[in-house]
Amino acid sequence: MECYFDNSATTRCSDAAADKMRQVLLTDFGNPSSLHGKGMQAENYVKESREIIAKTLRCEPKEIIFTSGGSESNNLAIFGSVRANKRVGKHIITTAVEHAAVYMPFKELEKQGYDVTFLPTDETGVIRLEDLENALTDDTVLVAMMHVNNEIGSVMPIAEAGKLIHEKCPDALFFVDAIQSYGKVQIIPKKMGIDMLSVSGHKIHGPKGSGFLYKRDKVKLDPIIFGGGQENGYRSGTENVPAIAGLGLAVQEMFADFDGHRKHLFELRDHLAEKLSDIDAVSFNSGLNENSAPQILSVSVDGVRAEVLLHALEDKGIYVSAGSACSSNRPSISRTLKSIGLKDSLLESTVRFSFSIYNTMEQVDYASDVMHELISVLLKYRRF
Amino acid sequence: MECYFDNSATTRCSDAAADKMRQVLLTDFGNPSSLHGKGMQAENYVKESREIIAKTLRCEPKEIIFTSGGSESNNLAIFGSVRANKRVGKHIITTAVEHAAVYMPFKELEKQGYDVTFLPTDETGVIRLEDLENALTDDTVLVAMMHVNNEIGSVMPIAEAGKLIHEKCPDALFFVDAIQSYGKVQIIPKKMGIDMLSVSGHKIHGPKGSGFLYKRDKVKLDPIIFGGGQENGYRSGTENVPAIAGLGLAVQEMFADFDGHRKHLFELRDHLAEKLSDIDAVSFNSGLNENSAPQILSVSVDGVRAEVLLHALEDKGIYVSAGSACSSNRPSISRTLKSIGLKDSLLESTVRFSFSIYNTMEQVDYASDVMHELISVLLKYRRF
Repeated sequence: MECYFDNSATTRCSDAAADKMRQVLLTDFGNPSSLHGKGMQAENYVKESREIIAKTLRCEPKEIIFTSGGSESNNLAIFGSVRANKRVGKHIITTAVEHAAVYMPFKELEKQGYDVTFLPTDETGVIRLEDLENALTDDTVLVAMMHVNNEIGSVMPIAEAGKLIHEKCPDALFFVDAIQSYGKVQIIPKKMGIDMLSVSGHKIHGPKGSGFLYKRDKVKLDPIIFGGGQENGYRSGTENVPAIAGLGLAVQEMFADFDGHRKHLFELRDHLAEKLSDIDAVSFNSGLNENSAPQILSVSVDGVRAEVLLHALEDKGIYVSAGSACSSNRPSISRTLKSIGLKDSLLESTVRFSFSIYNTMEQVDYASDVMHELISVLLKYRRF
Repeated sequence: MECYFDNSATTRCSDAAADKMRQVLLTDFGNPSSLHGKGMQAENYVKESREIIAKTLRCEPKEIIFTSGGSESNNLAIFGSVRANKRVGKHIITTAVEHAAVYMPFKELEKQGYDVTFLPTDETGVIRLEDLENALTDDTVLVAMMHVNNEIGSVMPIAEAGKLIHEKCPDALFFVDAIQSYGKVQIIPKKMGIDMLSVSGHKIHGPKGSGFLYKRDKVKLDPIIFGGGQENGYRSGTENVPAIAGLGLAVQEMFADFDGHRKHLFELRDHLAEKLSDIDAVSFNSGLNENSAPQILSVSVDGVRAEVLLHALEDKGIYVSAGSACSSNRPSISRTLKSIGLKDSLLESTVRFSFSIYNTMEQVDYASDVMHELISVLLKYRRF
């Protein structure tokens, strides 16, 4: 049985999205900037996807900026907003547990002379609001925070943070990395005080190379890619029409039964946790309640190296990740696992199961059986 | 008969490239950063495309950086090189006829305090080498130049410029926008003194959202998108594996018979020019020899507005562009046509025919017949 449980790294593109992409690649292949009918036809695909997405966020279509994916969206939000709002200040805030695509832009801005605060988290991976409150100053121009943590599925108190930021610093902007939450945890930017929000297509069964940035209409933003002025001047370059069309369809599918999908993911996660909980060496780094994201279960196995377990599982057709798997083959100690205070011996003994709506309970049962079998064998032959 | 003659705006994706994309989207959909087999499988697609492309440029695979397309490649080359080589100086040089994706980054750098020289061209759209020589100073850090002009197909003296730049300014970098030349005009970076070179996939029957930057191994470059460290740290973000795989295949097809394709394009262009040359109102802005690019014919029709002609042609199934069609529906006076000294009355009376290897002589014959017919009608009813 094949069990792909690495859906937070990437998902299989949906069949319908792939079909639509093919149609656009081969038949409706115009450039939206062309003045003739093939250009207008291409533009309509972009318009349609923009409307579908805007509806899911209860925002205006013009507030959606298509990009090449999550990393570009994050970089655009961070660099674009601090550059366009220089007069506000040079202090920026983020958390200790962000994905590299937020963390590294912050490190770059630090090099450029920005004053950066990295908020710590509690042992569940969530920031303390009083830390955020204390960090905010008159000089704060940007707060960037992930919604759902990509490694353990913890959920940040976004609405509360948004309220706090706008009360204390009316000129500061609040950017939320929603790459692991969109489609899985409800998010309404205007209700939650979010000024910008990033999404990646390939995490929700859309194509790789697709994504967007929600930007509240009035927020000032500089582009990071200049040129022909596409996407209202915020993102130049010929629109990736096939990917945008595929993304729109994938979003439609994800949101067709939001509650049902969410329930299914919770069932998969909780079932696996329950089945693994009788293994002594196993502990969980994900909260097992409805306050955590439904699709992620981080599992530490005392005495078993993550890479060994990963490859042993792979031999049985089960695909999981060690660490977050978005850092280009360079396994390094996880900032998230450090931040929640995981003991040193478990830092390299942690794997992530991440589910998709297409996974089944049968797959979970199988994976649980394999885990029981493998862990007992691996612990017998442990060498460290 | 349908005649798509707007291939410099975008091309139809090749069937084989679209098939390969589908395979990667639906079956081999892993994230190259994942440590398990699905990750390695995905990484192999990227590796294979990198090798195919490197071969066409006679460079090392590691000198190819995959991006989301031509505009990103241009922005990465320009912003990334001046930022990484600040110590060299703050003077940058480009030409008056660049695409917006080079022109706008230069305007942005001008705003940021860089001293910019825009080299004029002669009446064929080509810079004068003595102008370049005079512009180069000890403070010059970057020279950016298109290889083939996207509106008229003129070819810049790249090898001569490269030699001049490196002789006079050994620390300056030479960046070539090869988006309209790759696959149509021979280009060997190391022979021509090129330090960086940009290519877009969707201009050569690859997918939209694909492209790359060639960067000579030793050239220092800062990223514009930071994160997980993919592409050797020069371009973070999950690799767009389906698009990269499709691009590799499209490149393979383009270069399978480079000379034959080039000959075919010349025949199409020259045949159309010959057929249209007996219309009094018609004049050509493209050189009709082998020193110009084979795929572009810029045609001015005295007394006929380009947009009117474009839509009249469209009614007959013929797709061309007015202006360069890469500027997001904002028709503005072409900097290229101004620079070659086209008289004012023709600036808005110019259309571009741009061919692909899949176009046929029959299509050209048909388009020529339609042009004869339409122009005589449109001139009869001209109102301006």
